[in-house]
Amino acid sequence: MKQYAIGVDFGSLSGRAVLVDISDGAVLASSVMDYPHGIMDRCLPGGKLLPQDWSLHHPADYLEVLTHTVTEVMKTAGVSAGDVHSIGVDCTASSVLPVTREGVPLCFLPEYRDEPHAYIHLWKHHAAQKYADRMTEKAVERGEKWLGAYGGRVSSESALPKLWQVLEEAPQVYDAMAYWIEAVDWLIRQLCGQITISSCCAGYKYLYCAPEGYPSDDYFASLDPRLAHIIEDKCSMPVSPLYTKAGGLTQEMAGRLGLTPGTSVAVGLVDAHACVPAAGITAPGEMVMILGTSACLMVSGETYRSVPGCYAVRDGLLPGLWGFEGGQNSVGDMLSWMTRECVPERVQQAAKAQGVSVHQYLSALAAQKKPGETGLLALDWFNGNRSILMDSGLTGMILGLDMKTAPEDIYRALAEAAAYGARLIIDTFRERGVRVDKLLVTGGISQKNAMMMQIYADVLDMPVRVLPASHGSALGSAIAGAAAAGCYPTVQEAIRHMAPKAEKVYEPDPVSHRTYERLYQLYAKLYRLFGQDPNSVMKELLEIKRAQAVSDE
Amino acid sequence: MKQYAIGVDFGSLSGRAVLVDISDGAVLASSVMDYPHGIMDRCLPGGKLLPQDWSLHHPADYLEVLTHTVTEVMKTAGVSAGDVHSIGVDCTASSVLPVTREGVPLCFLPEYRDEPHAYIHLWKHHAAQKYADRMTEKAVERGEKWLGAYGGRVSSESALPKLWQVLEEAPQVYDAMAYWIEAVDWLIRQLCGQITISSCCAGYKYLYCAPEGYPSDDYFASLDPRLAHIIEDKCSMPVSPLYTKAGGLTQEMAGRLGLTPGTSVAVGLVDAHACVPAAGITAPGEMVMILGTSACLMVSGETYRSVPGCYAVRDGLLPGLWGFEGGQNSVGDMLSWMTRECVPERVQQAAKAQGVSVHQYLSALAAQKKPGETGLLALDWFNGNRSILMDSGLTGMILGLDMKTAPEDIYRALAEAAAYGARLIIDTFRERGVRVDKLLVTGGISQKNAMMMQIYADVLDMPVRVLPASHGSALGSAIAGAAAAGCYPTVQEAIRHMAPKAEKVYEPDPVSHRTYERLYQLYAKLYRLFGQDPNSVMKELLEIKRAQAVSDE
Repeated sequence: MKQYAIGVDFGSLSGRAVLVDISDGAVLASSVMDYPHGIMDRCLPGGKLLPQDWSLHHPADYLEVLTHTVTEVMKTAGVSAGDVHSIGVDCTASSVLPVTREGVPLCFLPEYRDEPHAYIHLWKHHAAQKYADRMTEKAVERGEKWLGAYGGRVSSESALPKLWQVLEEAPQVYDAMAYWIEAVDWLIRQLCGQITISSCCAGYKYLYCAPEGYPSDDYFASLDPRLAHIIEDKCSMPVSPLYTKAGGLTQEMAGRLGLTPGTSVAVGLVDAHACVPAAGITAPGEMVMILGTSACLMVSGETYRSVPGCYAVRDGLLPGLWGFEGGQNSVGDMLSWMTRECVPERVQQAAKAQGVSVHQYLSALAAQKKPGETGLLALDWFNGNRSILMDSGLTGMILGLDMKTAPEDIYRALAEAAAYGARLIIDTFRERGVRVDKLLVTGGISQKNAMMMQIYADVLDMPVRVLPASHGSALGSAIAGAAAAGCYPTVQEAIRHMAPKAEKVYEPDPVSHRTYERLYQLYAKLYRLFGQDPNSVMKELLEIKRAQAVSDE
Repeated sequence: MKQYAIGVDFGSLSGRAVLVDISDGAVLASSVMDYPHGIMDRCLPGGKLLPQDWSLHHPADYLEVLTHTVTEVMKTAGVSAGDVHSIGVDCTASSVLPVTREGVPLCFLPEYRDEPHAYIHLWKHHAAQKYADRMTEKAVERGEKWLGAYGGRVSSESALPKLWQVLEEAPQVYDAMAYWIEAVDWLIRQLCGQITISSCCAGYKYLYCAPEGYPSDDYFASLDPRLAHIIEDKCSMPVSPLYTKAGGLTQEMAGRLGLTPGTSVAVGLVDAHACVPAAGITAPGEMVMILGTSACLMVSGETYRSVPGCYAVRDGLLPGLWGFEGGQNSVGDMLSWMTRECVPERVQQAAKAQGVSVHQYLSALAAQKKPGETGLLALDWFNGNRSILMDSGLTGMILGLDMKTAPEDIYRALAEAAAYGARLIIDTFRERGVRVDKLLVTGGISQKNAMMMQIYADVLDMPVRVLPASHGSALGSAIAGAAAAGCYPTVQEAIRHMAPKAEKVYEPDPVSHRTYERLYQLYAKLYRLFGQDPNSVMKELLEIKRAQAVSDE
């Protein structure tokens, strides 16, 4: 008799559920739903205006999406509730909210309805930047050892700077919350009644460094005496290993979702990290790269290594291994900028006439060029550089322009720059002793842009294995759920059976690689010149820009 | 009784005559006519195909334009032929052709009609590049002193590399010609029957260095023994000082043009240099800058100085002084590239809706920005760098791009880069001991782009005096003609009376200048980094591009 697992993935704009066959991972049904309130970056539902840089979600949306998508996949697949053995959930992170001891979001309480800090602070809520910066400074000053595991910097996208912001700006919310909890862990609490934090969330988002644990009270007290017991006071959720069971589905939620009470609920995952099981990754040295607006590169290793601008989290990706994560802030983003801001009418018209997107039109033209033929070299720092330099003030550059430079040349140069950026991260991993032997790629660009995938293969001199479309994270959550429910003897077995095979492999071309090797050395030179040299023209330029912005105020 | 002068300017696409009042330089009439054959860069009139990089003119077009425009200004102004005291002519240079001893262009003879080398080799005929390169190499090898007066390089746009090309590729044309003569000097021969070469053409285009004269026969013999007597054999036109009379109008030409025989004909001018009198320049340290597709910067000085990538010609601009000339290969050109290749549909539509050009639309938006506010810094080397680096392999660059970079930001950055490039030339002049105290600007951009003119003033920290529109070179030729005819006691007097006053003065803003001073220092750093460093990423990139182009062949 068939057994099924449900995986639910909560993204930035919508949530998606899949129902899969536990024996082979085949997706029988899927369902997507947009969040009714979307991203709240201008005002709250009640109309209260938000400051700049804010990005909130409404937790009620998550419950609505959960109910709708799960009941829909059940209906579509036509399987009986008794055959669904597990449910797994993943979510963007750190998307974090204050809840009561009973797990009720403060924004559900009438007295906090108009309080922005009572809602989910989305990962890209950047208003806590200054708190993150102060946390970094103090950690550097004190020589905190854990900072190396976070690439040397506390990210404003992580949970604790956001919590400090709440303390400063809404002390009543701070006082009222029992937990400052990731949305995914709150959803697990809703599903099975257990308060817990996954090792993935704790490690990547709460500065939890196994085996030592969280930073010391001393450290937090050095930031602000009121923060001395911040972990004990607000983050005392027990840490649970990934791929384990958090609990059984409650009576109430079972009723709401049309499932059986007691169905196994797995510990939550971060959405990006749910791509690891979905990519079929089971061993050290196997890297998965998510290529979308930005890029995320994840690989496991047996030994702790500190890699600048990258994270190292024990049990962060696979049990018993260190999970390393690096990222590029701008990949699809920078290409979209180019197609929006830098493409002449004739290109937009020609694309329209052919019934293709500007991306497709330019990619087709750019694919006809050879490496080096455009004469261009770009830096991919349109949103700054996360790994390796961790410098949000760095900017993009295009060099080699002449009167014959065409839009497709610039497009290709930007695509190449993204690949050079990935190569630099991978090279740094290797220099630091983290093996990268195999590369699997997922995300929108991997499906849509064959030209880019070939460039990645040629630049990296590695076969690029592209995973089948869609369901990536949701499928990963379903796999994690099945593993947690004990449907397979090991996590690795679950992944091996349930993950799809790579759909297409781009093999590196040795002739192209030789040219790209020379070009990459030039990229690396610009990287040092503008990114590392303390007298970098790029950094001085930003100082001048900032001075002009200040003089406006 | 009023006295009149006619000036005729032969450009790349058309010729223009003006008829002016000698007492005050007022333009009474003007007439323009396109060359019937245009630029011949694909085939000869008889259909013979031309190789790549060729650009020819038909000398018959010049005679037709001369006759048409002069008779038209006479008709329009309604003055009597007896009141026209002088005629002056200028032309693009080196635009050069082979003629018989009698001044007949070889292409007028039936046997050479289908011979490309028998036509005018336009200034931008770049097919002689390799001959220019060999001339430079040999001059460097031999330590030829005159090379310093040409910025250290023989230009492929000058006359002698083109002549060498003729010898190599069409020896019968080489043998048949009596003179290898500038189009302007050939026109003077047509008008007054005198064979001569102006000190301007000889100095700027034939490597004639007063007082030593042309390079030695030894030097030419070292290139190719057949060139040993090249000057005596093919360039024996006597050198005449500028602003002097070449002769009187012949009976035949007087009839053709409707003028009086014996009317004074002045020695010819190069078109750019005809802007010097038109700009009212009479003294050392007064610079005129022509801002169009490219930029030309000219200033006189009392003492010889060698300036890299710039020319120094005795009597080249004003009698008794050294004429210094520097240039930027890409100004309007690079902005046009940007509006053509890098501007999205919405901008093109908005410009159309407002009934303005894309240049005007973007300039208006860019004018609202402050120096440094765009966060961008560009290099203006879209056509290489002439002064100071003399490196045609250099390319353009834009640094500081981010997701918010708008088309008007890029437009402004390119305009600023052009101004930084001008500043670098002027700074180098000054470092080498050539004074630059005053700046007059002419050319299309000076009329059309107030934003750019303000940027030039702020970057250079000098008032930018913009000359009145149009007639620039033709008016300069008319002034030169009047001076040559002795209508004024000195050349300076002629210029002072006849040149128009600056129409508009852009004063530097001290606050903007302070920021531009910082930005210019960054530009200068990039200039050294990419333009001068022998390990420049830009140069290595070009090598890779060239290697790819070769592998295609």
